[in-house]
Amino acid sequence: MVLRLDWMAEALYREVADLPIVSPHGHCDPAWFSADQAFADPAELLVIPDHYVFRMLYSQGVPLEKLGIGVPVEERDARAIFRLFAAHWHLFLGTPSRVWIEYVFRETLGIEMPLNADTADAIYDAIAERLSERAFRPRTLFERFNIEVLATTDGALDDLAHHHAIADSGWGGRIVPTFRPDAVLDATDPRFVENVARLGEVTGEDTGSFVGYLEALRKRRAFFAQMGATATDHAIEVMHTEWLADPAALFARIRAGEASATDKARFYGHMLIEMAQMSVEDGLVMQIHGGSRRNTNAQIMDRFGRDMGADMPVATDWVRGLEALLNRAGNEPDLRIILFTLDETTYARELAPMAGHWPCLRIGPPWWFYDSAAGIARYFDNVVETAGYANLAGFNDDTRAFMSIPARHDLWRRAVAVHLSGQVARGYFDRADAAGLARALATDLAREAYRL
Amino acid sequence: MVLRLDWMAEALYREVADLPIVSPHGHCDPAWFSADQAFADPAELLVIPDHYVFRMLYSQGVPLEKLGIGVPVEERDARAIFRLFAAHWHLFLGTPSRVWIEYVFRETLGIEMPLNADTADAIYDAIAERLSERAFRPRTLFERFNIEVLATTDGALDDLAHHHAIADSGWGGRIVPTFRPDAVLDATDPRFVENVARLGEVTGEDTGSFVGYLEALRKRRAFFAQMGATATDHAIEVMHTEWLADPAALFARIRAGEASATDKARFYGHMLIEMAQMSVEDGLVMQIHGGSRRNTNAQIMDRFGRDMGADMPVATDWVRGLEALLNRAGNEPDLRIILFTLDETTYARELAPMAGHWPCLRIGPPWWFYDSAAGIARYFDNVVETAGYANLAGFNDDTRAFMSIPARHDLWRRAVAVHLSGQVARGYFDRADAAGLARALATDLAREAYRL
Amino acid sequence: MVLRLDWMAEALYREVADLPIVSPHGHCDPAWFSADQAFADPAELLVIPDHYVFRMLYSQGVPLEKLGIGVPVEERDARAIFRLFAAHWHLFLGTPSRVWIEYVFRETLGIEMPLNADTADAIYDAIAERLSERAFRPRTLFERFNIEVLATTDGALDDLAHHHAIADSGWGGRIVPTFRPDAVLDATDPRFVENVARLGEVTGEDTGSFVGYLEALRKRRAFFAQMGATATDHAIEVMHTEWLADPAALFARIRAGEASATDKARFYGHMLIEMAQMSVEDGLVMQIHGGSRRNTNAQIMDRFGRDMGADMPVATDWVRGLEALLNRAGNEPDLRIILFTLDETTYARELAPMAGHWPCLRIGPPWWFYDSAAGIARYFDNVVETAGYANLAGFNDDTRAFMSIPARHDLWRRAVAVHLSGQVARGYFDRADAAGLARALATDLAREAYRL
Repeated sequence: MVLRLDWMAEALYREVADLPIVSPHGHCDPAWFSADQAFADPAELLVIPDHYVFRMLYSQGVPLEKLGIGVPVEERDARAIFRLFAAHWHLFLGTPSRVWIEYVFRETLGIEMPLNADTADAIYDAIAERLSERAFRPRTLFERFNIEVLATTDGALDDLAHHHAIADSGWGGRIVPTFRPDAVLDATDPRFVENVARLGEVTGEDTGSFVGYLEALRKRRAFFAQMGATATDHAIEVMHTEWLADPAALFARIRAGEASATDKARFYGHMLIEMAQMSVEDGLVMQIHGGSRRNTNAQIMDRFGRDMGADMPVATDWVRGLEALLNRAGNEPDLRIILFTLDETTYARELAPMAGHWPCLRIGPPWWFYDSAAGIARYFDNVVETAGYANLAGFNDDTRAFMSIPARHDLWRRAVAVHLSGQVARGYFDRADAAGLARALATDLAREAYRL
Repeated sequence: MVLRLDWMAEALYREVADLPIVSPHGHCDPAWFSADQAFADPAELLVIPDHYVFRMLYSQGVPLEKLGIGVPVEERDARAIFRLFAAHWHLFLGTPSRVWIEYVFRETLGIEMPLNADTADAIYDAIAERLSERAFRPRTLFERFNIEVLATTDGALDDLAHHHAIADSGWGGRIVPTFRPDAVLDATDPRFVENVARLGEVTGEDTGSFVGYLEALRKRRAFFAQMGATATDHAIEVMHTEWLADPAALFARIRAGEASATDKARFYGHMLIEMAQMSVEDGLVMQIHGGSRRNTNAQIMDRFGRDMGADMPVATDWVRGLEALLNRAGNEPDLRIILFTLDETTYARELAPMAGHWPCLRIGPPWWFYDSAAGIARYFDNVVETAGYANLAGFNDDTRAFMSIPARHDLWRRAVAVHLSGQVARGYFDRADAAGLARALATDLAREAYRL
Repeated sequence: MVLRLDWMAEALYREVADLPIVSPHGHCDPAWFSADQAFADPAELLVIPDHYVFRMLYSQGVPLEKLGIGVPVEERDARAIFRLFAAHWHLFLGTPSRVWIEYVFRETLGIEMPLNADTADAIYDAIAERLSERAFRPRTLFERFNIEVLATTDGALDDLAHHHAIADSGWGGRIVPTFRPDAVLDATDPRFVENVARLGEVTGEDTGSFVGYLEALRKRRAFFAQMGATATDHAIEVMHTEWLADPAALFARIRAGEASATDKARFYGHMLIEMAQMSVEDGLVMQIHGGSRRNTNAQIMDRFGRDMGADMPVATDWVRGLEALLNRAGNEPDLRIILFTLDETTYARELAPMAGHWPCLRIGPPWWFYDSAAGIARYFDNVVETAGYANLAGFNDDTRAFMSIPARHDLWRRAVAVHLSGQVARGYFDRADAAGLARALATDLAREAYRL
């Protein structure tokens, strides 16, 4: 499918369709660009790493093993996996996955045949052939996709070797890291104590003390910034921030294994405020992804690990949850925080009123399940009247599926055009205003929000 | 009113308008079909049993007694009740009740006059005349309505005598029971202990022990299945499931009258898991209706009893509430659970992501207040992009108003056509895909979800 | 902008566009009408008192001081403030503020130029000139605006001197007070004890005793009613009502400074029920505005006081929160309660089912952030199918920006026309029904709901 456009939407879309891609948040592997090796095969490219795809198949009774998940690479039958995917392609009717993958087939891979059980082999062969070509190596695609900048997401302990290698290679693609310190901030992580120790090693600070721990975090932030990072990223299930009177004492209890689950949540809530304060100092934009309950299927977690399609959204209270953080740092002119929600009821009730008041806040684009035509329509319907457009952060593709990046930006740009065309039709503003907003939503707001 | 259709929607609707009615969940009285007696009068047919109707009139100051509720049959003035209803008919502008009842008048009863205070008597007489005809007896209407199968909802202690009588009568209509064990699972029911004792009597098991109690439940399930049931049904206000280490001890405390409200909620949460596990064994599809706070008007409850229009929806947490159940049984290939919500915010936030992962889950159609044109539109808008269509359970009319069954399926089919026509117009898929989905949503998904 | 209308909507709008304005809830200052002095300057008229305007500017980094907030009147540079506003006018694209202010410019002030940095001075001068004319004095505007009745909101301790003065002046404009007793009911108010003492003084009752306190409240209600009030108004963050066994004891503890935050919330919950019971006696319509978390930005609160754009909506539970109140008084035929929510998820889930049952309840119009074209569309989409139209309370402009009252009623009437035109297009009812509903929604339902 292609999201259909009326003439006004088409005109607005045309003005932004060919703008470069600004991708300030996502999960591509920097190794692809340091090594610049060919992608392995069509299943590896389109099925195995795409949790949208395999969660749908699993929901309809296809065992994950049959999709090559949890199977050693050498035992996988890529063609069989692709056939299984093709045979279930009808399940994706009405989903954004179908939109994205059809775009990839049509625009990127040049495949015209519709996907189904009968065409599976021919399409598999066609894709495999493309992947063997130089034109389909990561760096070439990056350039063809017209990506101005791509941010990866990297653990706080990461040495950013691939980012170093990319920089050293002389290749001109701009790929920047993002500082993701959950593993050293969230004490519910089973390896938290170990991670903090490791943080001490990589920074040369004594992370046995709270002061040293903060200093180590500062050092890592500086290292990431020096490597090009402009942002941090933080995930939290139940939104909570709190300024502790004595965080050092709690830190010590956590390290001693004496803290309760509530203690750990309070500590993380404190550390998010520390992060905000460090952002005031170093200028890194803070991203908060709130309300995802991770790994809710224990059997899948045990057998296949995390990110296997069993993360579920939960209701979120941004107003009370962020109050302590905002009252510590929210009026600072240099602070920038971008909020991502999986609870769409908070768009109009919380995020738009908050972003329409606090100078530090920007509303992130529709996240995860809502990065879809109807999801984007609901987003604009719910946020714009209270927050306007200037308090939005443009678009994120947030994907680990590199091939789908242009598809996702294209869908966003089309959905933006549909929204703006509707606003013009409803008399909200005129064509010229709409054209300016289309451009802002396509690239400018993302650049500005992320200080890129 | 008739929900208006554009040409594409009209074409899609035409293809499914005359398909048989599959009614896998509802509250018709099986006695109607075993006795096949005429309905009493227009008030008894259209006003007195319809909580949508009398709740609206009550909200505008009409005492329930004036509608014949809580009044002995012999003291009711059916004509006066019908006049009162007619005089307030304007209150229903914009409501699905008006759509359904106008359909019944027009299509089923052949009445052309608009309803109002002036036409009340003439319409009353016309309906009364129809009801005296053989053609308006329950079995004849069942056949005329083209009902392929109709499921009733029956308490766990029910002897299913009317279902027996229907089967013995040689009449060909397929009417199947549904196993509804709330009264013997939910210890907050004031007669729980008594019900459990009665469960022992009807099964010959010692329900004084937890083991005997489970065995008695198994036997009742088997009896229902043997009588044609393919499903169970469970209502719960605050979604909660939990696998208890020692349910037998809690069962004993409940029977001894020593359990707190929290204990009882925990016990019910455990028993829902037991039900899921029995469903894995016996194949009965499990339905969960969550989030209705029952009988919130104590004065109405005291004077008129339950189901008097004072049940209210409350916010629901499906993700955490079902987690224990799903982690015990949710990956079992033979389990099927259909979820019904009164909290529409959970469509996109919880139900679609959950049904798009767990193989056992299907999303039930819009329930109760949301079984309406706008309610159905919101449902599709919110669930399809994440769950697709294959994880939906088709349609339920869920009614105790037998006469309105065709009206409700017709509205659903029209609203489905409007949705699918919109999807085609937006470019999501083509006409042929839409036609297939229309058929699936009209009948096939319901058959498949309920194993009918 | 003007909300654009199709031909049917235009026709429906035309029938109600010139109806008088019924304004049963708002925050205009009665002093404007007792003194009838000219408004000071364009900044004072349009920027400084409009929290929608200054919150947006603050969110984009404009300090409140630069907008004249917290600055002594004599130190303000009205022209500089207006220039700053004009330079940021693009921020309001897509917001209702832009709609309202453009209406005021065009329809009320007769200004044709578009607002921007270049036209700021010319527009400032044009407005300043208008304000100096007699035709732009409050009373003349009141008449020109065709306001049938305007309700103000007044603290329980207010002497209503301005209302007296208006009545004594012989001017015919109908301006009625509304009894807002939060400060003497909500013990979390830091001056609660002092306020209660003052309540004793103004009524001559011994508010040291709970009985005297109730009697004092009754007296104030009677005084307000005698001054023309037909309604009370109550704000509460977390909806809670509860009938206490011994409220007098808790009242004593609160006065002694021995009550916890929970105690205070329980006391307020009790007092709301007392208010409902007094409404049964004296016929004052009860308004409840639930779910606003006030003054969430402590720094702004400390420097500039309350109502500075940092009030935030929070999720609300109306069903359980109002249950105690409704079960004490909700079936009383003479009680009328109008509910206002900042949690739109409660429209369909709670408010419509509740108002579609309880005879006392009416649903207030979209409040605050949702008093906008898309907000109104969502409101109708979510409430009508369950509650019908007769359980709605028409429109409130709820504004302290007197100049914007016609703009707000005009937007409402246009949005009503868009909604009703859609209903006719969808086949829900015919043109004549729509015309009747347009009139009801424009004026009649508000008059009826507020007993005006």
